[in-house]
Amino acid sequence: MEAEPVRVEPGPGALFRSEIFEQPDALERLLADRVAIAAVGEAVAERAPLMVRLVGHGTSDNAAAYGVYAFGLLSGLTAFRDSISLSVYYGAALDVSRSVVIALSQSGRTPDVVEYVERARARGALTVALTNDTDSALGEAAELAVGLQAGRERAVAATKTYLNELAALVLLAGGLAGRADEAAAGLHEVAVLLRSSLPELERDAARIAVPCAYVGRMFVVGRGPELATAREIALKLTETCRIAAEPLSATALAHGPIAAVDSLFPVWAIASHDASLPAVAEAVQRAKAVGATVISCGSAATELEAEYTLAVPDAPAPLLTPLLSVVPGQLFAGALARAKGLDPDRPSGLSKVTLAR
Amino acid sequence: MEAEPVRVEPGPGALFRSEIFEQPDALERLLADRVAIAAVGEAVAERAPLMVRLVGHGTSDNAAAYGVYAFGLLSGLTAFRDSISLSVYYGAALDVSRSVVIALSQSGRTPDVVEYVERARARGALTVALTNDTDSALGEAAELAVGLQAGRERAVAATKTYLNELAALVLLAGGLAGRADEAAAGLHEVAVLLRSSLPELERDAARIAVPCAYVGRMFVVGRGPELATAREIALKLTETCRIAAEPLSATALAHGPIAAVDSLFPVWAIASHDASLPAVAEAVQRAKAVGATVISCGSAATELEAEYTLAVPDAPAPLLTPLLSVVPGQLFAGALARAKGLDPDRPSGLSKVTLAR
Repeated sequence: MEAEPVRVEPGPGALFRSEIFEQPDALERLLADRVAIAAVGEAVAERAPLMVRLVGHGTSDNAAAYGVYAFGLLSGLTAFRDSISLSVYYGAALDVSRSVVIALSQSGRTPDVVEYVERARARGALTVALTNDTDSALGEAAELAVGLQAGRERAVAATKTYLNELAALVLLAGGLAGRADEAAAGLHEVAVLLRSSLPELERDAARIAVPCAYVGRMFVVGRGPELATAREIALKLTETCRIAAEPLSATALAHGPIAAVDSLFPVWAIASHDASLPAVAEAVQRAKAVGATVISCGSAATELEAEYTLAVPDAPAPLLTPLLSVVPGQLFAGALARAKGLDPDRPSGLSKVTLAR
Repeated sequence: MEAEPVRVEPGPGALFRSEIFEQPDALERLLADRVAIAAVGEAVAERAPLMVRLVGHGTSDNAAAYGVYAFGLLSGLTAFRDSISLSVYYGAALDVSRSVVIALSQSGRTPDVVEYVERARARGALTVALTNDTDSALGEAAELAVGLQAGRERAVAATKTYLNELAALVLLAGGLAGRADEAAAGLHEVAVLLRSSLPELERDAARIAVPCAYVGRMFVVGRGPELATAREIALKLTETCRIAAEPLSATALAHGPIAAVDSLFPVWAIASHDASLPAVAEAVQRAKAVGATVISCGSAATELEAEYTLAVPDAPAPLLTPLLSVVPGQLFAGALARAKGLDPDRPSGLSKVTLAR
């Protein structure tokens, strides 16, 4: 199924906005491939891997942080964001024969990710590429490839690719555990919830962005699967709004960084209905105690003591909530960039495909 | 061997400074225990683990980031910073029977690290605590314990504990690989180099701090083992100087965050003589191209196009360089805090032992 060409009204952030709104459709396009993706998951299961090595940069690295939980909770498998430099730059001789590598890249052209995959495959790992372009260097380098079906991404800051990376990880982890249908049904429900939530979220994000136009730095806190959301929202704010936005686990905030927070240093908290909510609530209390303005998003956003909330519906399973909670952050980043007089479609110094070492 | 009581002249940052200067002695105290630590490494080797799970928060998590390289390069073993929340909050049922857990905590009282170790041990992992207080809850929870010998740390922001955590990881990884003597000899040489470098580094850091007094945000970039240094320097700057200092791999800088950099947003780069130096140099060029002021430290600091450099000697092996390159960042953080009118000994909102969830 091809992406429908989307008509975009011109103006600052028009591309970024249209791709945020395209996400439910992008998710459905990926789900149309669910049988093929589940088959990749089953092929991985046949190799009985001992661990999953996730690699990527930027947005793809944030999706990898989510993959740790998708594989841990759906498949009972140890997954981690592997060091790319350890093998590519330092030539470490690790045993990867019982590993599966999941390499994430929007373009499939990230040089050191491609090189990592080539080395891991030569050393006996099962390698899987997750990319929008399965004909890319990464798609060629890996033994198996999953097309992300996000369609052409014209805004520099990725949105729909991130969402489809999370969904592809859920489908793979579900396929690995023989739970592909359950995973696909949950993701379909997420697409429906997201479609109906977008208009109100956009209005609320725009309203909150105006009083935040002065903000130059921010901490974004989450825990568990929502740490990936914290990372991705912080990256969107940094890219499109030129904010120094640092992602932190709710617990890491107390181990040092809280010392920098004051009334001019807002904290964004991702709060969802899952087992880590008390840790996030405690972090928010610490931030409030030193005078911070708190913005919260997620399904439990209204349960924190936040000045501004961007609540999303509960997903059919806690593991799927990050696909919804990231969206208020994307919309807020677009609105805040415009409030600051910036064009979120054209962040300075960035290009769509990053070939940096 | 007990820590000598150090006489500290009173004044802002006096404790922080005295502990930075105590680091060569602290390192020698740890080395006096090298046979016992190597024996722990050998005990780990006997269990033939498939992977090393590193856990800690704050400074200890930064040391864990270094552990990935110490075990990868010295022992040829896959190591990673494990998710604490996956088991502690979400109860993931992972197979840890062929894993060794290395849990790092200055006080040995970090609640979720203790709980992680209890769960992992009950599920069959070999658990090792690295802490200054082996009689602590963490020391009790783990099967094996290594005392960090940093002595009492009175400044809230940790320095000598971090250095001894890195050194203990090197001794363990060396012991595991039957290379304990080589590791200890290298660390002794580091202590000697550090002792002779401290006075000049302190003068240079103070000179650079004055023109940086305006700084409110910063990126700190490194790659490979020096990513741990980037993380730890960023944390010191955030804790003691109230700067929003975000650590990034040299490659991650290009994947988004570079868009936020301008002439009022300095970049600190850690540059050492190792295989990742070209990637760091490329990141610095990108930062310079958008007008950033660059501060560099490390053994190759003078080889970058930086406005300010804080060079350290080459360590006897590239893997040991991070024990030296972090020290200019510690000294700079102390000097910058004073230049900003802050007391680095008493960051607001922090206490020495963090009991946050």
